[in-house]
Amino acid sequence: MNNGFKQPAPEGWVEILWTAIAEDLGSGDPTTALFDEDQAVNWYIETQAEGVICGLGIAAYLFQPEADEPESCQVDIHARDGDFVKPGTTILSGRLTPAKLLTKERTGLNFLMQLSGVATLTHQFVQKVANLSVKIVDTRKTTPGLRYLQKYAVRCGGGTNHRMGLYDGIMLKDNHIRAAGSITEAVNKARSVAGHMTLIEVECESQEMVDEAYKAGAQIIMLDNMDPFLMHDIVKQYKGKVVLEASGGITLDTVRGVAQTGVDAISVGALTHSAKSLAMHLEVN
Amino acid sequence: MNNGFKQPAPEGWVEILWTAIAEDLGSGDPTTALFDEDQAVNWYIETQAEGVICGLGIAAYLFQPEADEPESCQVDIHARDGDFVKPGTTILSGRLTPAKLLTKERTGLNFLMQLSGVATLTHQFVQKVANLSVKIVDTRKTTPGLRYLQKYAVRCGGGTNHRMGLYDGIMLKDNHIRAAGSITEAVNKARSVAGHMTLIEVECESQEMVDEAYKAGAQIIMLDNMDPFLMHDIVKQYKGKVVLEASGGITLDTVRGVAQTGVDAISVGALTHSAKSLAMHLEVN
Amino acid sequence: MNNGFKQPAPEGWVEILWTAIAEDLGSGDPTTALFDEDQAVNWYIETQAEGVICGLGIAAYLFQPEADEPESCQVDIHARDGDFVKPGTTILSGRLTPAKLLTKERTGLNFLMQLSGVATLTHQFVQKVANLSVKIVDTRKTTPGLRYLQKYAVRCGGGTNHRMGLYDGIMLKDNHIRAAGSITEAVNKARSVAGHMTLIEVECESQEMVDEAYKAGAQIIMLDNMDPFLMHDIVKQYKGKVVLEASGGITLDTVRGVAQTGVDAISVGALTHSAKSLAMHLEVN
Amino acid sequence: MNNGFKQPAPEGWVEILWTAIAEDLGSGDPTTALFDEDQAVNWYIETQAEGVICGLGIAAYLFQPEADEPESCQVDIHARDGDFVKPGTTILSGRLTPAKLLTKERTGLNFLMQLSGVATLTHQFVQKVANLSVKIVDTRKTTPGLRYLQKYAVRCGGGTNHRMGLYDGIMLKDNHIRAAGSITEAVNKARSVAGHMTLIEVECESQEMVDEAYKAGAQIIMLDNMDPFLMHDIVKQYKGKVVLEASGGITLDTVRGVAQTGVDAISVGALTHSAKSLAMHLEVN
Amino acid sequence: MNNGFKQPAPEGWVEILWTAIAEDLGSGDPTTALFDEDQAVNWYIETQAEGVICGLGIAAYLFQPEADEPESCQVDIHARDGDFVKPGTTILSGRLTPAKLLTKERTGLNFLMQLSGVATLTHQFVQKVANLSVKIVDTRKTTPGLRYLQKYAVRCGGGTNHRMGLYDGIMLKDNHIRAAGSITEAVNKARSVAGHMTLIEVECESQEMVDEAYKAGAQIIMLDNMDPFLMHDIVKQYKGKVVLEASGGITLDTVRGVAQTGVDAISVGALTHSAKSLAMHLEVN
Amino acid sequence: MNNGFKQPAPEGWVEILWTAIAEDLGSGDPTTALFDEDQAVNWYIETQAEGVICGLGIAAYLFQPEADEPESCQVDIHARDGDFVKPGTTILSGRLTPAKLLTKERTGLNFLMQLSGVATLTHQFVQKVANLSVKIVDTRKTTPGLRYLQKYAVRCGGGTNHRMGLYDGIMLKDNHIRAAGSITEAVNKARSVAGHMTLIEVECESQEMVDEAYKAGAQIIMLDNMDPFLMHDIVKQYKGKVVLEASGGITLDTVRGVAQTGVDAISVGALTHSAKSLAMHLEVN
Repeated sequence: MNNGFKQPAPEGWVEILWTAIAEDLGSGDPTTALFDEDQAVNWYIETQAEGVICGLGIAAYLFQPEADEPESCQVDIHARDGDFVKPGTTILSGRLTPAKLLTKERTGLNFLMQLSGVATLTHQFVQKVANLSVKIVDTRKTTPGLRYLQKYAVRCGGGTNHRMGLYDGIMLKDNHIRAAGSITEAVNKARSVAGHMTLIEVECESQEMVDEAYKAGAQIIMLDNMDPFLMHDIVKQYKGKVVLEASGGITLDTVRGVAQTGVDAISVGALTHSAKSLAMHLEVN
Repeated sequence: MNNGFKQPAPEGWVEILWTAIAEDLGSGDPTTALFDEDQAVNWYIETQAEGVICGLGIAAYLFQPEADEPESCQVDIHARDGDFVKPGTTILSGRLTPAKLLTKERTGLNFLMQLSGVATLTHQFVQKVANLSVKIVDTRKTTPGLRYLQKYAVRCGGGTNHRMGLYDGIMLKDNHIRAAGSITEAVNKARSVAGHMTLIEVECESQEMVDEAYKAGAQIIMLDNMDPFLMHDIVKQYKGKVVLEASGGITLDTVRGVAQTGVDAISVGALTHSAKSLAMHLEVN
Repeated sequence: MNNGFKQPAPEGWVEILWTAIAEDLGSGDPTTALFDEDQAVNWYIETQAEGVICGLGIAAYLFQPEADEPESCQVDIHARDGDFVKPGTTILSGRLTPAKLLTKERTGLNFLMQLSGVATLTHQFVQKVANLSVKIVDTRKTTPGLRYLQKYAVRCGGGTNHRMGLYDGIMLKDNHIRAAGSITEAVNKARSVAGHMTLIEVECESQEMVDEAYKAGAQIIMLDNMDPFLMHDIVKQYKGKVVLEASGGITLDTVRGVAQTGVDAISVGALTHSAKSLAMHLEVN
Repeated sequence: MNNGFKQPAPEGWVEILWTAIAEDLGSGDPTTALFDEDQAVNWYIETQAEGVICGLGIAAYLFQPEADEPESCQVDIHARDGDFVKPGTTILSGRLTPAKLLTKERTGLNFLMQLSGVATLTHQFVQKVANLSVKIVDTRKTTPGLRYLQKYAVRCGGGTNHRMGLYDGIMLKDNHIRAAGSITEAVNKARSVAGHMTLIEVECESQEMVDEAYKAGAQIIMLDNMDPFLMHDIVKQYKGKVVLEASGGITLDTVRGVAQTGVDAISVGALTHSAKSLAMHLEVN
Repeated sequence: MNNGFKQPAPEGWVEILWTAIAEDLGSGDPTTALFDEDQAVNWYIETQAEGVICGLGIAAYLFQPEADEPESCQVDIHARDGDFVKPGTTILSGRLTPAKLLTKERTGLNFLMQLSGVATLTHQFVQKVANLSVKIVDTRKTTPGLRYLQKYAVRCGGGTNHRMGLYDGIMLKDNHIRAAGSITEAVNKARSVAGHMTLIEVECESQEMVDEAYKAGAQIIMLDNMDPFLMHDIVKQYKGKVVLEASGGITLDTVRGVAQTGVDAISVGALTHSAKSLAMHLEVN
Repeated sequence: MNNGFKQPAPEGWVEILWTAIAEDLGSGDPTTALFDEDQAVNWYIETQAEGVICGLGIAAYLFQPEADEPESCQVDIHARDGDFVKPGTTILSGRLTPAKLLTKERTGLNFLMQLSGVATLTHQFVQKVANLSVKIVDTRKTTPGLRYLQKYAVRCGGGTNHRMGLYDGIMLKDNHIRAAGSITEAVNKARSVAGHMTLIEVECESQEMVDEAYKAGAQIIMLDNMDPFLMHDIVKQYKGKVVLEASGGITLDTVRGVAQTGVDAISVGALTHSAKSLAMHLEVN
């Protein structure tokens, strides 16, 4: 059964969905009085640009008819999260009473358009590094309240998730290193409090830092804002011994160059903090 | 007392803030174990691009020291929501224990960067129509959960808010008109159920629709996806008799041309659904 | 399909309903142990006084059988919110297991009786001004937590809603005027921050204030606690130019006299802050 | 320290208070832009009718200045919940910035006026039975969401609380008796599942029912809709052996007659479902 | 219809259930990607030790298939809360997609194992006092968040509930007595504020205290940490005049001796604060 | 500043604390009426058994005086989470009004006693494996609603946390392996969807499974219910190449034997599902 979601699906979206509906509805939509509650209409959502769809499962859930609506009402899913589609593709359609449709239309589109925007931008980055063995990963620079959904959208676009938050992975930055006295001390202390299944990453800005982090036992090393030549040297020394992640202002224009240094992963904040919505609209016929 | 906010401030942001913190913290940040809880550090947030700041009140609230932190801890606000600043401007600074700083840093920046992105894009549109008597207004195409905050950011950027949601204004679209039988019927029915302080807007796509909407008593008329010449004609006939709002895919490139037709307002969905984050970072010194 | 509601229905009542059920149930009803969970009974709710019904949609939702109840269970709706009924009218009936019925009975009646009380009182005011072209409108003097529901009850009783809250309309009172320096200044400032679809009302206590408010561009003028002769004079001058709303301690005895001055609307706080419940009871047969 | 509350204070009101504020504020009050945020004003709340005050603790909490308001701001409590006051009494006063005052004024008054209405009506019933040893008790016919607060208002007015809900006392009605087969069976079954500190009351409509309930071990007997002569007879037989509670449509006109039968308690639904608000207003000086 | 619950069922568990699921799922289970969402499997839960089952209704609710799962999915209940079962008993079985099963398995078992642990320990205490007319009652020493559920488990194990919390019964302890001046004063004051259906218990540590509490009108007397001989004397004097409850460190080894003194009830904190889980596991076949 | 917590502290406990207070308080404690609200008392919490303290930070937060309590009120922390203390140790003391103390006492003790119980049991396991290089780790068999707190208690007792939930680590069990076809397939598929910082553990019951899991790239191998000789053999082959975790019904009696096989970690469900409370009480002096 196609429920629109790409597995593993995100958690917690039902609550966010109703929050968004509440924002829009407030005390209610007075125009619902214009409609006969027994007269349903056919509707569909169509893309107006090409890109990767994300949010179909959420929208399908939202537009499903409630118990007191006419029996002819239903919802049909024509794609799946993660599908790349052309402009003019019908991705979701159904039949619903106009009063309900109007109270759901904008919110449903807002989810679809913004998550598809993240998936599409991720897909563009992934396309840029085609044939290279590198992962495009996201960051914690997500929209407040939408982290799980945006990270799901990244997966739909072909990207990989970095840690979800502060709780499921350890990233040691300059602050930690300064507080502990050295990279070695920081890694040791972190290891002593880390949970049983927690990896340690160290943010490094120089060859020396990378060397110390590797010796201290870091499992991932972030090459932060390094120039490609230095990255390339480090990759030559450490490839296969530790996971190497490039980070820092990488764009669609520069990502392939960074990937060619041989790093294992490239993290891109823009995937979630600066993606444009994918255009689509809901029509009644 | 400068609390960072531009009045009228948005409501409900405290809840969203803690939701975002919870997303990031989950079960907790194990690296807090690396820090001495009595040793505070100085920090500041600096812009890395030029734009209009929004979210300072939220960030100032977030970074304020809690009751059990050292007495030297505090937060200082160096700007106000709505200020246009250059790259390299320190907009917020303070003193906090590193453990707390780390659990707040990313979330604080996420709010500041994304709201400032909306304010900055709005400001760019407003700049484009300088010296013309037209308002740049937002839409309901907002990020789920952030509507009030994004609409506040639009105000900070010099824009004006359209209705907040379905509840505080009536917009009659093709669906309403079809259900009622005609624009005239739709406006009449809407008026009969409208609250005491509710305005009615009709979405029109032709001269005929505008004529009928005006006669029916619509108080605002949306000129939806019209070409500028038709808009110009309509403005000549109706300016001052009814509020005229242009809408439909208007960009930074096209907005001045649309404004020159003489419409009263131009609504732009991109303000909230496709703004890029404004770059900034938090440093410890 | 009659779901009991009068459109446009209020929003957010499901949450309030479960809050009320939780208040009543607490840790549970020990007397449910007296009943056989497979043996359902027939029940009905009957009015014990005449009035306008409100809350049927909520009650019908509440008394609908849950998934694990016998198949014979159901709920039947015999009226619609807004109907005026005689004492002894069966407005809702059904079949349910006694254990469930007992845990829902009191809460269901509390909603029906109190909302019908508001609708009935509103109806009485509306009847008093029959044949006069004036609207009876409510205020913000509502019961905490029940604003949307009470304002819905006002609509069911034939009244019209004033603004829902501080957010969807601007009312300028003495405080605002004093702060701004004058009515003119207050209206100008309010206009400059008002959203795109927001009306401005000014509370006036004298002819001079009305004159200034009108000139400043107020769209609604409240005649606050004015004597009927002054009201009548003002109506003669301003009828049709601006919306005129009478307010201040108006009762069932005085409302017709106020209406005869020709004002467009009369706002009555008592509709929501002092309505008596409409008597009704639930019987099992 | 007078915090306005009468002990034992109700629980859970802080949440309801913020719910009410949220209902009123929605996306925010645009008129706050008219006020200078550093310029506070003096305000006071004055009664406009005589009655028993309730809700002072809540209102005092609401109007207390927040951390970012000028230092001169404060709140002063001039009475205590449960005080009987004359019209024109100042019960609360303070100093606050106008923007904050406006966003709190209506909600604060709504709580004070409605809870004082309940306390005042209770007080009127209590006065009617002066010098008689009988308690005026409330019922479960409360306003959804306000049960604890209304039951607190009843205590402030000199009344006594019946059970809070289905959970803290057992009331056996016709449904229970029918299901169990007899009053005796119902009481026995209830006793077997009752908690360790739970009393059992039986609703009786005849002498025979009272006799059986007493023999079965009921600890409280409700005399439901009985005529005063029968009540009087039953009191003669059972006074001191079991608690006797009169119930059913008792009004201010009839309550003294009922009390004179010698019953221990009289329950009155109107205390909470049909009390009028006590008039009061907030003024700035 | 067997829904697994023993009536009267606890309230509020649905919320706790979803809280627990959220704790476990967080941002989601990545391993769901390994399963075909259309291919369901058969599962069952089997006890691994003997004891009293509790939580079946909750688990049955949790494992029921959601709307988008294959039609073959279902859940079967093979026992009822309160049943005593042998090791190796299948208590619940069903058919579900593996992805859903994995996200529910641990939480379902956690509820079943811990509530069955409480029910089993209660049962062991009840067995120890077989043939004696004494109730085993619980205390307020419950696990935070699980009070209603644990008190329900006590009922399933054959125990009786003491008060649910501070709100539904009055227990006067040394603090109350000291503040009031004497037991007599404390009981009088408590009676004056007590609700209409509230019993008063006094905690006593000596013969003198018991005497005074009885005279003051206490309805229940707790014999706190008394030696059995003194308890026995007090029982001889007061049996049938007042409810006598023994309390204080009573174990499975000592409970029968305490019961033989003739007290009416024995309260045991360990029922809820120190019960071991009942072992069981979920298998797929 | 000692705030009682051991870093890294758990998240989310404030909400659980107030849930627990609400469970206990319900509609309120009527006995607060017995106390003078201006007269505070001194109190302290004393252990009645030896063990490791956990929950001091929570209790200190709970018992801190509120704004309207007398100035003499305060709270003093005499230990820190993770301290091992003797019976009779005062761990927390303070001064508070009796009304507040009574509404907080039971809940504060419930948290302290139950979390200290988990910490103490963990400590006992850790002591048993003294001088051996092995970690005692917890499981997902936690009390619903208390996972983060119980896992914190495990850390306080000297244990290490396994994954927090399904979201922050991948554990492949028989279900996954069957669905994927083989261990190798399961690990490959899991790796392809795993986040950037996620480790993979495979549950193995035989030498063959361990061999395949290692080859497939599992980073942790669980030796599930294996006999110690087999474990010992596997440790000899794989020590240092992969993390080895023993699991399955390990008790205080058997844990040292298991540790002596040389495994890296031993997971024990009983730490969180079957710990007894640590006895302590609150006294007023």
